[in-house]
This record gives sequence, structure tokens and C-alpha cells, in this order.
Amino acid sequence: MPSPLKERRTSGAARDGVSEFTTERLSIYLRCLAQLEAAGVTTISSAKLAERFHLNSAQIRKDLACLGELGIRGVGYRVADLRSHLAQALGVDRTRKIIIFGAGNLGIALADHRGFNIDGFEVVGLFDDDDAKHGRSTRNGIPIQPVDRLEAVIASERVEIGIIAVPAPAAQEVCDLLVDAGIAAILNFAPVQLRQREGVAVTSVDLRINLESLSFALTSVRKD
Amino acid sequence: MPSPLKERRTSGAARDGVSEFTTERLSIYLRCLAQLEAAGVTTISSAKLAERFHLNSAQIRKDLACLGELGIRGVGYRVADLRSHLAQALGVDRTRKIIIFGAGNLGIALADHRGFNIDGFEVVGLFDDDDAKHGRSTRNGIPIQPVDRLEAVIASERVEIGIIAVPAPAAQEVCDLLVDAGIAAILNFAPVQLRQREGVAVTSVDLRINLESLSFALTSVRKD
Repeated sequence: MPSPLKERRTSGAARDGVSEFTTERLSIYLRCLAQLEAAGVTTISSAKLAERFHLNSAQIRKDLACLGELGIRGVGYRVADLRSHLAQALGVDRTRKIIIFGAGNLGIALADHRGFNIDGFEVVGLFDDDDAKHGRSTRNGIPIQPVDRLEAVIASERVEIGIIAVPAPAAQEVCDLLVDAGIAAILNFAPVQLRQREGVAVTSVDLRINLESLSFALTSVRKD
Repeated sequence: MPSPLKERRTSGAARDGVSEFTTERLSIYLRCLAQLEAAGVTTISSAKLAERFHLNSAQIRKDLACLGELGIRGVGYRVADLRSHLAQALGVDRTRKIIIFGAGNLGIALADHRGFNIDGFEVVGLFDDDDAKHGRSTRNGIPIQPVDRLEAVIASERVEIGIIAVPAPAAQEVCDLLVDAGIAAILNFAPVQLRQREGVAVTSVDLRINLESLSFALTSVRKD
């Protein structure tokens, strides 16, 4: 029986002791620190960080302890230092290149997504097996290319991340294609469980979880 | 300073003691239980549940304790009972209707997204302020409607959830429009912080967090 969590764990590539739930929080801390730095704050304690951003201070200390001794007793964290340390730990201190497979509505939306094209990420290719789409470009100018260009683009651009934006029945085949072409990390938007491949990090995005969370909130609103 | 976490907390609507991180796990448990039920498993202990799906058994017991006494000593959980209890708690035991504002690539992709149209959710409308799009439909047949139809559709269809799929500069205006038209829960895909409204649950989806998680995994792969 496949596990719905196995993929979320980026198996075969997750660092010991740091789960994906933690890296999600590290991402959130990184955003908080960027805001603090922009506001001119130079040092902050875990308690203040927790208070300001509605986080849990014990959790912050525990999460950051995974990265080594970053806090200074009586001072807290140096905002700029911690931010650069977190960016380095998350691997967003340099630009990682992305290709997207599937130039349907979702693939095109993701190719032009701002968060996928700033601060450490860049979409360098959009691929589709539909000949009719080749030669067209997204609004931001990313051309839709045929599948036979995939390997060359991945090699020449040193692409590390592949995004799967095809319908569920095609997702496994596309995943295998990407891995065989040299991709080391996959972000899967197809609502299907992908087989694990040794040394390849796979994360599946389940957009429905957000809806269920809202549904839960509505249940509580109704009862008030 | 805005908090990047405030929105995730579905403020004004979150039930006491159950954070959004917990509801995310409840969603995951619900998927696990559906798989177990499909496989003919009738009872399961928290330890077995944890082992089978790579979860934390203490966390499972803690999370489920928020919902009342559901486990039976020496037996564990009855799979069917727990599943229906979780579905009820998450509010997915009945269908909630959704409208999407913004018929760009992302809005159209979400309107036809399978997970948004089964088991407790249904997209009943897609709106855009671009006249040129009106009268067209998505592949699954959801028509793109003008904004002046918004209030009527929300009222007649009893829509509870609104999805924002417009560019960042337009998101706050669309949010206000949806709330004024009677929407009680918002799922925001625009990369922008929305102002909180009393009694309205707002969740923002940050797709970049997934990329950062993969980036972290790649950092560890490189070091091996």
C-alpha cells in the first residue's frame, strides 16, 4: 500500500533529523527574517520572534538547533546572520534552475509564477508532447519546447528541479523521463502517488489539504 | 508589520486548541484511513497507523484526542468510525461549494482540478472582469461569468469558499468583494498578504515553500 506521506518526506534525500515539516517552518522563518531585516531589526530573541509572528518559541529554538549553535545567550539571534544561514541551509543562497513538464493551464501558470522566478529559483524551460503548442510562449516569454529537447536543456542549463504538471495518468512516465534525463528533485502537481527513485527527492503538492483546512474552520464558524 | 503566519491560522475561525498544522495532519490521517478501508482493514492501533504511513504515533494520539475519545483500549481505532468522525470534524461530510475569481491559466486549472470537485467540494462558478472571456467555458464545462453575477451565484448556490486566482495587485479588492458578497472562507493563491476580516477564514497558498523544501533536500544530496 502506498503511503501518502512517503513522498512528502523527500525520501532518499531528506537530511537525518530534519523532516519536511521542519523545512516548511524554516521557510517560514526565512520570510519572517526577511521582513525583520527590511524593517531594520538587527537582533531578535526566539521569544520575540515567536510573539511577533505568532509562532512557538520552543519550536523555533528546537528547529534552529538542528542547524547548529546560532543563538547568542542574552542577545538572541542576529537577524542578518540567521537569515543568510537559513538561506544557505535551505539551499536558496544560489539560483536553482527549474523545468516544467506539461504546458496546460497549470504548467503555464507555474512557469510565470513570480515565486518560482526570484530569490533562488528560475524556470528555464517548459515542455509538452503536443506539437500544436511548440513555438508558443508564456506571457513572460518562456517558450514551449518539444520533449526531444528535454535532455539537452537539462544538461546545458544544469537544471536540478523538474515540475510535473500533466494529468495523473501521464505523471509516472513523465517522472521517469525527468529522472532519466538527470533531474534530482521533483515537484509533482498530478494527483497521483509516484514511485520512489533512489537519490531523487519527490514532493507532491496536495492543494485539497488547504480546502479541508478551510472546511474545518467553517465548521467551527457555523457552531459559534 | 504583517505576519506571514497570521493568514495560515485562519484567524477568527480556527477552533481553540486545533491549529492549522493539526488540521493538515487530520487531512493526511483521513487519506490514510480511506486507503485502509479500501484495503479491508477494520481496526488499527496508533502504533500500526504510524508504522504503516511513516507517521508519529504519539502525535496521532495527541491530534485525535482533540476530537474526543475515539480509541478503544486494546483494540485501537475502528477505521470506518474514525474516518467518518474525521470527515465530520473536517467538515467534508457534506459538499461545500466553491467559486473561483480570476479565469487566467491558474483559475482555469483550479476550476477543473479533480480534488476540488469530488468528496465534499464542488466548483460552481468561475468569474473574471475581462469581458472577452465571458461565455467561454473550461474543459470541464464551467462557464466564465461576469462579476455582476457574483452575488447572485453565491446566494443561490449557497457558496461558502472563494478562491482568489488573480494577480497580486488585484487580490485585496477581490477578497473584499467576495467577503461582501457573503463568502466565509478564502483560499488565496496571489502572492500577497490579505487583510483579516472578522469571522472570515483566510488561507494563503505559498507554492514556493515546496520548492524550498526540495532545495533543502538537494543540498543534502550534494553533500553525500
